[in-house]
Amino acid sequence: MKARITVTLKNGVLDPQGQAIEGALGGLGFENIGSVRQGKTFDVELNETDEAKAKNILKDMCEKLLANTVIEDYRVRILS
Amino acid sequence: MKARITVTLKNGVLDPQGQAIEGALGGLGFENIGSVRQGKTFDVELNETDEAKAKNILKDMCEKLLANTVIEDYRVRILS
Repeated sequence: MKARITVTLKNGVLDPQGQAIEGALGGLGFENIGSVRQGKTFDVELNETDEAKAKNILKDMCEKLLANTVIEDYRVRILS
Repeated sequence: MKARITVTLKNGVLDPQGQAIEGALGGLGFENIGSVRQGKTFDVELNETDEAKAKNILKDMCEKLLANTVIEDYRVRILS
């Protein structure tokens, strides 16, 4: 089973990397940019056929390693 | 208009960061992991109301700055 985990910064958490990208895009001539915020994705292949079980395992991975839940949100999506 | 850009490594491109995460998850007791590959997301807020135009601008951003198209694929998705 393939899944995609998306980890994004919570609203209100400062994102200097996103701001740097915003500045770089402005320097390249892109206008009308409101804001840029960066996040991470993890494409995980799991040898587990039960979707509910897989989701639980993936959430557990996020809580324990992939996301810093103090400042980050995560979302688990089963792809196939 | 809000959009999410997802940048992932192309198939076949080595992903040492993903492998490290895979190893770390194994060390935490997670079993049955096939593979882990890491990618990036960019949440861009654009002051542009036309969806087609916005998509073109975002693709242009990917080509010029956000993605290394030699080794990375990108996908643009309009959120709202």
